Amino acid sequence: MIQSISTELETQLQEKIDFKTKPIGSLGTLETIAKQIGQIQNTLSPTLNQPTIVVFAGDHGVVKSKPVSPYPQEVTQQMVLNFLQGGAAINVFCNQNNIDLHIVDAGVNGDFPENEKLITAKIGLGTSDYSEGPAMNSSQLEEALAKGKEIVKDLHQKGTNIIGFGEMGIGNTSSASLLMSYFTGIPIEECVGKGTGLDDNGVHKKAEVLRSVFDLHSSNIKTPIDAIQFFGGFEIVMMVGAMLEAAALKMTIIVDGFIVTSALLSAYYLDKNILDYCIFAHTSGEQGHQKMLDHLKVTPLLHIGMRLGEGSGAAVAFPIIKSSVEFLNKMATFKSANVSEAN
Amino acid sequence: MIQSISTELETQLQEKIDFKTKPIGSLGTLETIAKQIGQIQNTLSPTLNQPTIVVFAGDHGVVKSKPVSPYPQEVTQQMVLNFLQGGAAINVFCNQNNIDLHIVDAGVNGDFPENEKLITAKIGLGTSDYSEGPAMNSSQLEEALAKGKEIVKDLHQKGTNIIGFGEMGIGNTSSASLLMSYFTGIPIEECVGKGTGLDDNGVHKKAEVLRSVFDLHSSNIKTPIDAIQFFGGFEIVMMVGAMLEAAALKMTIIVDGFIVTSALLSAYYLDKNILDYCIFAHTSGEQGHQKMLDHLKVTPLLHIGMRLGEGSGAAVAFPIIKSSVEFLNKMATFKSANVSEAN
Repeated sequence: MIQSISTELETQLQEKIDFKTKPIGSLGTLETIAKQIGQIQNTLSPTLNQPTIVVFAGDHGVVKSKPVSPYPQEVTQQMVLNFLQGGAAINVFCNQNNIDLHIVDAGVNGDFPENEKLITAKIGLGTSDYSEGPAMNSSQLEEALAKGKEIVKDLHQKGTNIIGFGEMGIGNTSSASLLMSYFTGIPIEECVGKGTGLDDNGVHKKAEVLRSVFDLHSSNIKTPIDAIQFFGGFEIVMMVGAMLEAAALKMTIIVDGFIVTSALLSAYYLDKNILDYCIFAHTSGEQGHQKMLDHLKVTPLLHIGMRLGEGSGAAVAFPIIKSSVEFLNKMATFKSANVSEAN
Repeated sequence: MIQSISTELETQLQEKIDFKTKPIGSLGTLETIAKQIGQIQNTLSPTLNQPTIVVFAGDHGVVKSKPVSPYPQEVTQQMVLNFLQGGAAINVFCNQNNIDLHIVDAGVNGDFPENEKLITAKIGLGTSDYSEGPAMNSSQLEEALAKGKEIVKDLHQKGTNIIGFGEMGIGNTSSASLLMSYFTGIPIEECVGKGTGLDDNGVHKKAEVLRSVFDLHSSNIKTPIDAIQFFGGFEIVMMVGAMLEAAALKMTIIVDGFIVTSALLSAYYLDKNILDYCIFAHTSGEQGHQKMLDHLKVTPLLHIGMRLGEGSGAAVAFPIIKSSVEFLNKMATFKSANVSEAN
């Protein structure tokens, strides 16, 4: 159960922002975020403690039978190894911005050597092929949600109060498109994009596959949880659990791109209060993301055509979120700096 | 004389970007910037050395006779003191992002105690009132341009290869609007905005003042340099000189908001090659900025409604620019990480 953010200090936070040595409102979205994080933490002096990004990785049964990605399935495992070795974009951006990075094996089709960054939470060697049946059974669904919650609870106990989410999984834009279509009511064809780089013909084939998947299951899906079970990847479902727990623990959530937003959208339809805790990092170049953001009535920080996944947008946007908290805590006031106010 | 950026390594830079472990193009604008800085520095491994923001401050004669700002003129001096004491937004963001900060007294109506951040380059105690005559005489213009160049040359010699510009000067959105109207041909009324916070009536009055200023001088202005002399503030003119020198020295230039862009626009009409060296930090909330950016056919990194000045947008955007260089230098390649490429 997620509580709405506190309004107790709302007026005082706004006053604190307005007394800083700057024209009223002149820090734009930085002011909105400063206030939001102040309300999340219910303090006039919020802090960002042990900022962390968790990347959930999982494989998708559908990629073995259907042409939904230009990359072979083994790339999921290879990229997780790349994360563990420190060579991926998310490593570079987390190092740059002093963000702790954890990689969760939520269901990759392959194993990994022990590594300090790795959290093993494997539900299976990839989901079942949802072009034939549900992506997972209900006990796998429950297990994935529970493990996501557990991972976040653990990070919270160790001191993290702001958490970004990322993902890796060849085929997972397809899951995200199916969830998007279900939750927004937008036809699946408008929810499908290039993913990691399909050409127009590839996008067309992917849309045909997903249309028949959607139609195959639609009469069996009665609730949001059903949709998550039928369409989700293990990494997406685990993220849903993780996000719900993060908001329940009053952590600030940084939402990355298309796939992470599909997890957030799913979580939102389980508990709408989650939105109070979310900062949207960027608008992905993946077509469909903007419509998902419109559906949620949110505007991300960045619009720079990133569409890499891994939580890379969350990591790149993090310093802007930090700027919000920094100005709130460290700028002088008109009074303390002896600056005249406006007439 | 500014050279176009080198195209010698363009293909190799693009290859280096494309061989990284990510779908082609998936880092969006970060890729464009990585390539641009690589070309500016003519290397496959560019670096950002001693990133610096220089804030030019100056006063404007017109504010004494005409209602163009809700703040009194002494706020320029007070805010410079605030910069020197470390309490302003620009201090907070530069500290956060490890950016060196220098404040230039280009012509503030008041004096300052010695301070390690302060560069004294005072042309006068504020410009003359351009509602009566030109803002400065031609020797002041030359002196301001020369001092701007000298300041940048000095920073370059000390090792800076990326420089952001900021400004402080009560009344300087008016100078910026006049320059914008002259260089873009957009009627002055569409170039005028709220500045530090005028209401609608205030904006209307400001537009009336600036229309008569524009009409007073337009027949005397024959060249871009004339426009800069008649309309410029000392801080804007010194910035024009500084920007021209930065590009001549092949430094990367970070352009902040409305006023800094008006200086860049002026520099652009003196030497169009300058644009090759510029990264635009953000779209200001000041109405008119978007049109100036459209005129230059450029898209900034951030669109988060900031309109504070001081170079604050440049400082907040800096980590994104750094992310560009970091991924180019530090990400693994498909080969080095043993990751399969797309079919």
